[in-house]
Amino acid sequence: MTNVQVSSAPASGMRDLAPAEVAIRDWATSVIMKTYREFGFTRIETPVMENIGLLRRGEGGENLSLIFEVLKRGEKLEKELASASCKKENLADLGLRFDLTVPLVRFYANNQNVLPTPLKAIQMGPVFRAESPGPTRFRQFTQCDIDVIGMKSELVEMELLQATSQALLELGFKDFTVRINDRRILSELARSFGFAEDKQETVFIALDKLDKVGVAGVQKELESHGHSSEAVTKMVAFLGNLSTTDSALDARKNQLPESIDPEVWQALVNVVTAVSDVAKSRYNVVFDPTLVRGMGYYTGQIFEISCPGYSSSVAGGGRYDKMVGKFTGREVPACGFSIGFERIVSILLSENFKPPVETQKVALIFEADRDNLVDVLKKADQLRNSGHSVCVLTRKKDFRKQLDNLVSQNFNSFASYKGADLDPEIKLLTKSE
Amino acid sequence: MTNVQVSSAPASGMRDLAPAEVAIRDWATSVIMKTYREFGFTRIETPVMENIGLLRRGEGGENLSLIFEVLKRGEKLEKELASASCKKENLADLGLRFDLTVPLVRFYANNQNVLPTPLKAIQMGPVFRAESPGPTRFRQFTQCDIDVIGMKSELVEMELLQATSQALLELGFKDFTVRINDRRILSELARSFGFAEDKQETVFIALDKLDKVGVAGVQKELESHGHSSEAVTKMVAFLGNLSTTDSALDARKNQLPESIDPEVWQALVNVVTAVSDVAKSRYNVVFDPTLVRGMGYYTGQIFEISCPGYSSSVAGGGRYDKMVGKFTGREVPACGFSIGFERIVSILLSENFKPPVETQKVALIFEADRDNLVDVLKKADQLRNSGHSVCVLTRKKDFRKQLDNLVSQNFNSFASYKGADLDPEIKLLTKSE
Repeated sequence: MTNVQVSSAPASGMRDLAPAEVAIRDWATSVIMKTYREFGFTRIETPVMENIGLLRRGEGGENLSLIFEVLKRGEKLEKELASASCKKENLADLGLRFDLTVPLVRFYANNQNVLPTPLKAIQMGPVFRAESPGPTRFRQFTQCDIDVIGMKSELVEMELLQATSQALLELGFKDFTVRINDRRILSELARSFGFAEDKQETVFIALDKLDKVGVAGVQKELESHGHSSEAVTKMVAFLGNLSTTDSALDARKNQLPESIDPEVWQALVNVVTAVSDVAKSRYNVVFDPTLVRGMGYYTGQIFEISCPGYSSSVAGGGRYDKMVGKFTGREVPACGFSIGFERIVSILLSENFKPPVETQKVALIFEADRDNLVDVLKKADQLRNSGHSVCVLTRKKDFRKQLDNLVSQNFNSFASYKGADLDPEIKLLTKSE
Repeated sequence: MTNVQVSSAPASGMRDLAPAEVAIRDWATSVIMKTYREFGFTRIETPVMENIGLLRRGEGGENLSLIFEVLKRGEKLEKELASASCKKENLADLGLRFDLTVPLVRFYANNQNVLPTPLKAIQMGPVFRAESPGPTRFRQFTQCDIDVIGMKSELVEMELLQATSQALLELGFKDFTVRINDRRILSELARSFGFAEDKQETVFIALDKLDKVGVAGVQKELESHGHSSEAVTKMVAFLGNLSTTDSALDARKNQLPESIDPEVWQALVNVVTAVSDVAKSRYNVVFDPTLVRGMGYYTGQIFEISCPGYSSSVAGGGRYDKMVGKFTGREVPACGFSIGFERIVSILLSENFKPPVETQKVALIFEADRDNLVDVLKKADQLRNSGHSVCVLTRKKDFRKQLDNLVSQNFNSFASYKGADLDPEIKLLTKSE
């Protein structure tokens, strides 16, 4: 190898995670996992790379243009490069996953014979999108999903919402709002107002921006897409009413078209009621007929959780009953909810959150020139056997500064090694002035 | 998207991990992490992808030919493809890491100003190698490393060996053997026997195969590389003696050339003695002058742990004092030890190991046609609040079979929902005949 110095920065859009942030991430992970396990979910894992054909199939919406593609290798690559029709589409055989839902559905199809029904899966791991990097936009980030595959009852929606809300409570979040809607209500709303069926997607895209651009902004966008002015007027009136009227379920029902399927409505009422009930006023649960969620694969209820004081949502999900069938040839109901793990961590970091330290963390400090290493190791072993977490360190010249640094590394005590036959005295660490 | 069915298998050489195996992996991870934290190590994390220039630099030995390379995107890719000199080396700008050591050294160089000295890092995560897949050879696998950067004392070697051994003990491994050697002893051995300095690498490669091919096999390989027959004869005599003589340190010392650096020898004696001492006869610690370890970057002591009954090692590592300096321009001592996580998991799986279940896991079973979902959810909530882990399930036609399946999913009890006002009776689950 050469001695030429290369950049030591991580690749563009990627992050190095130092001990302090990892400690927060590990704590949040353990809290979330513990909560989900209490709701009967079990963790599964799929590979980071998938066949490129699977990723390009189309369930990813706009993420399809953001796939990191992996070059073919050896003879296969040589053959492509030598070919007169060498196309970039043929250069890759693998790609990095852009979400955990497409891999989950493939996993289910591949392993359905050995999996329980329903499968209540936890997934947590890195996903990759080739977006333009920004201060809060990374090309590798962690997703944390729970999904129930193989159960149609709206008990699934209830449990996903309760489990995710419970995890947020355990993480210290309060007074958040769980917003619930149903794709079938959205569709019927658009149809009954007179929007063309084949242009519904642009209606939802406009509606999705309501929070940011307001009713006038939505109106402008709808008009720009050439929707009938009658339909736009009805939508604008509907949106205007929402903000001034009672948000109770009965009041909302009266504003919806009568053509809404009563079963769809009843399921929504059941979910809002049940989750409100177990929330015990610790968080809010509301029907929000303007909630859209981006992904095209949703078929039923959709949900999102937002926190007071933070603009983007901290969790989102919904039911996607048609997607598994595209892999298995047999329709299998499915519903999932994803915590915005990076969002959670960035909120905790912004609030200077410190994860609880479980054991007493002792720095055992010896003098490199003086002490016998074998004896030092044995003394550390004794301390560990009496229940301490022990890090052995050499004494530095500026001892006071060394102790201060230990405080910022989350050590709560230290002990100076005094020889093989003496027990070191464990002293609490406090930051000097 | 299309309805064409694509294969649901993971990509070649990749694995889907179902709940039973993930439970073992999660248990093993938590045991290892807990042990390493007790020794004062803290977890850090680097991205899965690195700049391709970093990965191609040459610290990876034979892994360099196994890098999964990631295609450039957008205009940069178009430009390469349009260029007359379109070379495969120019098509990728990123690659998937093949180990955790190269990223660690880059991480240290990038963050040294904010990191403690020494940095005692835990790393655990997926690495990727484009090897021919086999029953036990995967293209994505988990590595689990501890490294100490910035401390020269052999206390580092002692602690790495003790911590890794302790983790193996906590995982249930017994009577394993920690083998220790020093690259400088190996070099002096080869030099003193008369092997040419510039051909030492081939001597070590031959020696590394001793376990598999025996002394005669090593002799044959050495001869095939055209080493002087006098040198080969001396090596053969040395290896022959090892198996018949006392393996105590003093006896081994007498077999080594007198030109071995006394400081190198003393450090080795210190490490073997100290780790033997804290082992308290639960595992063996030996000096093995034939231990080689593959990677070229080792500069001092090297180590490996082997288990009775299993051929390949379960852990390996060593000191690499020259590698960090190639990134920082300033020499920084470093030493690491890696647990063969996949090896550990495969041994646990082969022994039908079941991880301990911590909480009572109850299946609350309701009848979908009869019971009120809101009430079922509230009942599950009550059970959870009294300390149970609860999974709500609909009752299936073959109830006995359903209960049997719950046993194999690690449920230890079940309760039938009896209505809003009645407490369900929790019954222990036992497999029917």
